[in-house]
Amino acid sequence: MPVETITWKNGKIRYIDQTLLPRKVKFIDCASVPRLWKAIKRLEIRGAPAIGIAGALGVALAANNSKADTFEKFLAELRKEIKYLASSRPTAVNLFWALSRMECLAESNSFKPVATIKKILLKEALRILDEDKKSCRAMARYGASLVKNGDTILTHCNAGGLATADYGTALGVFFESKRQGKHIKVYADETRPLLQGARLTAWELMHEGIDVTLICDNMAASLMAKGKIDKVFVGADRIAANGDAANKIGTYNVAVLAKYHKIPFYVVAPVSTFDFNIRTGCDIPIEERDANEVRTIMGSHVAPAEVKVYNPAFDVTPNSLITAIVTEKGIFRKPYQKSLARLKRP
Amino acid sequence: MPVETITWKNGKIRYIDQTLLPRKVKFIDCASVPRLWKAIKRLEIRGAPAIGIAGALGVALAANNSKADTFEKFLAELRKEIKYLASSRPTAVNLFWALSRMECLAESNSFKPVATIKKILLKEALRILDEDKKSCRAMARYGASLVKNGDTILTHCNAGGLATADYGTALGVFFESKRQGKHIKVYADETRPLLQGARLTAWELMHEGIDVTLICDNMAASLMAKGKIDKVFVGADRIAANGDAANKIGTYNVAVLAKYHKIPFYVVAPVSTFDFNIRTGCDIPIEERDANEVRTIMGSHVAPAEVKVYNPAFDVTPNSLITAIVTEKGIFRKPYQKSLARLKRP
Repeated sequence: MPVETITWKNGKIRYIDQTLLPRKVKFIDCASVPRLWKAIKRLEIRGAPAIGIAGALGVALAANNSKADTFEKFLAELRKEIKYLASSRPTAVNLFWALSRMECLAESNSFKPVATIKKILLKEALRILDEDKKSCRAMARYGASLVKNGDTILTHCNAGGLATADYGTALGVFFESKRQGKHIKVYADETRPLLQGARLTAWELMHEGIDVTLICDNMAASLMAKGKIDKVFVGADRIAANGDAANKIGTYNVAVLAKYHKIPFYVVAPVSTFDFNIRTGCDIPIEERDANEVRTIMGSHVAPAEVKVYNPAFDVTPNSLITAIVTEKGIFRKPYQKSLARLKRP
Repeated sequence: MPVETITWKNGKIRYIDQTLLPRKVKFIDCASVPRLWKAIKRLEIRGAPAIGIAGALGVALAANNSKADTFEKFLAELRKEIKYLASSRPTAVNLFWALSRMECLAESNSFKPVATIKKILLKEALRILDEDKKSCRAMARYGASLVKNGDTILTHCNAGGLATADYGTALGVFFESKRQGKHIKVYADETRPLLQGARLTAWELMHEGIDVTLICDNMAASLMAKGKIDKVFVGADRIAANGDAANKIGTYNVAVLAKYHKIPFYVVAPVSTFDFNIRTGCDIPIEERDANEVRTIMGSHVAPAEVKVYNPAFDVTPNSLITAIVTEKGIFRKPYQKSLARLKRP
């Protein structure tokens, strides 16, 4: 069973603090929106689907904590908190998708008492969480159909249970493949600067009994040249209408390598990761993070303290490098502009 | 002026301990071959040309410390120490080249008194050091002819003064370009696992007043996609007769990215780095290092303690991905098999 990354517990949001893994498994009970904002910002909660769920639960929490006695006051408060939560991280679209879904629901229930709307909002947040669980399982099944017994697979960052409420996206494919009796071997990129591959993916895969080998991000090419990688599976933080996919920095690097070595490159992401308002990946906002994430590791300086740093948290893989996109609604292939169109929400 | 990476001082080998940089500038006076072996193994001394010089000085040290009173005893001792030094690191050929040059010289002076041979050997080691200084300057001049005013250049690992006795190989090109009044900007890959880019290259370039920005190894692709990299310059640890070049792990990664983005990729290395006994890169032995270099950073665990690790210290860039090889004897281009033939020692 995957770890419970994020849940609702006694009127609070309970989540595992991912900055402490794998050294410490610590659950936090979060009772306020500012604390949740910080948790998303600091990557205590991370992974596009998990951030979406956190956003939805955050709106439920804000509603729950509200003392407003009229709908107008309540909605004004809620909108302020939603705007605040939306400012935590700019790239993963699941956050905006979940916040917007919660806001629309509040608006459309204006005729009901505030106490009732609070219940409706919590129910909706839990539905988003539950939908994520189901979509993880569906993605895993579709994805596993692409995996053969004996495959060696490369993955980047953490697209596992820790990035979702359940099985994960890319890693879900591995868990399901194993469940189906396929023997697979996984290489996990450590994923600098924040080492989600080393800290989270290695930990999760070992926990689930999957054969995992950790590498530095710059070692994948040499493995590919030796014919040791059969497939690449990664997650995504936002996918444009044409299939261009933003994901953790370094994903585009892997995609170019996969193309050069003629290795299939698969993106696994729920429909909530698609942003049909954005035509191509060029328009996806890319978060730049603090220089000290590169200059220091686990608090130790590894570079001159004053050195300039470029630290984008994500990059964009163009659709041409993506063999297929696996969602809970099926597997999509080129031309994406056309194939993905059927996912558009009306 | 570049830092004095390695010299001969009062009968000892003085070198800067590169494992402590950039936090601490500490010089070690090494008086024994086992201590030198450890210094090479632990990467206190690193960089193919510097390892070669260390090897030559190591033979001079062994000779100096010898109490043998006959040539036979002296040579037997020397050969034992040479064999031992050769076991420190397997990939950089400069070490074997320098050790073999010293051994041949001892052999060819068998008719002289041991005390005289000791002097001859020290003189030869200092000549190797001096040749390296001169070849650094010559490589830098040839390399700088490939650099335009305004270029933005990517480099990987540390091919600087710290890898040689002087200006460096790839970084020497930058220093010389600056000296010629060209404005350049450098992106330095941090170069996991041992972070030579973050610790050494960033430090050296800042020290010499060159505009340097540090990135994680997985960020180069996104810079290239944005058209922000004009050229790549790297060093090499061993170059086969056909131009295939072994260099720090991740170099092949960068070479593939450069090819994909149509960016020139230059290797800068002295003639002592060529191994004409080896036809192609497939035959270059690649050192695999301890798993804990990946699992831990600066002593802190960044991954599960028991996770499997793949940790090759080098990879091989095939000649097809190399735009040109810059040596102290000029710039060589494809077909390398043919162009490099004129470097073969008779």
